Amino acid sequence: MTRIAIIGASGAIGKAFVEEYAAQETSACVYAFSRSGTNFSRSNIVNTTLDLEDPLSIEAATKQISAGSLDLVIAATGILHANGDAGGEKALQPEKSLQQLDPEQLQRVFAINTIGPALLMKYFLPLLNKNSRSVFAVLSARVGSISDNRLGGWYSYRASKAALNMLIKTAAIETSRRNKKAIIVGLHPGTVDSKLSSPFQARVPEAKLFTPTQSAHYMIKVLDSLDRSQTGLCFAWDGKAVPA
Amino acid sequence: MTRIAIIGASGAIGKAFVEEYAAQETSACVYAFSRSGTNFSRSNIVNTTLDLEDPLSIEAATKQISAGSLDLVIAATGILHANGDAGGEKALQPEKSLQQLDPEQLQRVFAINTIGPALLMKYFLPLLNKNSRSVFAVLSARVGSISDNRLGGWYSYRASKAALNMLIKTAAIETSRRNKKAIIVGLHPGTVDSKLSSPFQARVPEAKLFTPTQSAHYMIKVLDSLDRSQTGLCFAWDGKAVPA
Repeated sequence: MTRIAIIGASGAIGKAFVEEYAAQETSACVYAFSRSGTNFSRSNIVNTTLDLEDPLSIEAATKQISAGSLDLVIAATGILHANGDAGGEKALQPEKSLQQLDPEQLQRVFAINTIGPALLMKYFLPLLNKNSRSVFAVLSARVGSISDNRLGGWYSYRASKAALNMLIKTAAIETSRRNKKAIIVGLHPGTVDSKLSSPFQARVPEAKLFTPTQSAHYMIKVLDSLDRSQTGLCFAWDGKAVPA
Repeated sequence: MTRIAIIGASGAIGKAFVEEYAAQETSACVYAFSRSGTNFSRSNIVNTTLDLEDPLSIEAATKQISAGSLDLVIAATGILHANGDAGGEKALQPEKSLQQLDPEQLQRVFAINTIGPALLMKYFLPLLNKNSRSVFAVLSARVGSISDNRLGGWYSYRASKAALNMLIKTAAIETSRRNKKAIIVGLHPGTVDSKLSSPFQARVPEAKLFTPTQSAHYMIKVLDSLDRSQTGLCFAWDGKAVPA
């Protein structure tokens, strides 16, 4: 039986991954992890809570899964902007200029986009299957490419994704030594019609604005095609490698 | 008169930069910034406190300098390891494996190696001379290169420097629009005999272990040779570009 874990299962892309995999592979068991819990009703989906910012919650969530039993893990979490809330959470917008840099925002974006996925690597990578091909993928972004950066702006988001790409590379090197079947990659989902991108879609041509399901389809195709020589890199929805 | 600001002036490399520039250019004014304050006694050195982790302290420290008056800024700060202290500060060692990843350590390393320099960019870049060539350089590291990463390990340090390299690129793009004379780069100092590298010198050939003064000499040569087309990149002590 194929076992798949999707973290961030209540987000637009995470949800699409859960639904696609659960429908495509009826023999698969899909673990859906999210902070507030999901209620997928298919019998082959396991709804579980997991708070990316709480290491104990990650550790607890992974306890139900045996070491070496996962074939695929996708971390589909991330923050680009946020509305403020009554609980005192500050609003957050990608910075248009240096003068908008704010240490609290930088810290929060690193916590969610970089440190959270680092902890997912720590707790989920040992759960990957060592006997047949297994994949750990994490949503990165083309704007996290240093060499591809031409427009500037979005300081904290860009830096958090560049740092994430480094963690992917570093974890891939370490994992290669103990699991010869594992492939660890970043994925650029394209621009997806979701809460994350909604304020920033104005200049995206219609054909390049994907539904979450479309983007998940493209990325599933990429994930299916990867081989071991590609571990540590970042790939876009069209299968092309995103440079560092 | 040439005006130079060195941040992290009490560290091994920062101190060497202050001494070299103050001696070489007797007509220069060198601002020496450090958390606990320095006591350089040359008349052309201005000792000033600045706490990288406190935005108000950075803003206050830059108030004494007029906009457009600095020719060179070097941020020579950074953390790789730390001893614990009685005040409750935890000891910190670069991670040898994923299992050593600790969210507090990741957060602290990003705070010092990435967010601190981001704030220095915010407050110091507007102070750069717009009428003749000016340079803002920040100590990065070859291990911050994603594509050059072959050994793995050192997760938080590597990721914090990759994020820093992204900030350098992003700030260079923005600054190009309003200051056509400014060059913003990262610098890899080589392995320098300092507190930062002392636990990690064992495998470094003697000729490649520099004194702080040697490394500062090499980097001063690199800084002197840079032109505008090189803004946004990272250079090693030998003048070679470090890939992203």
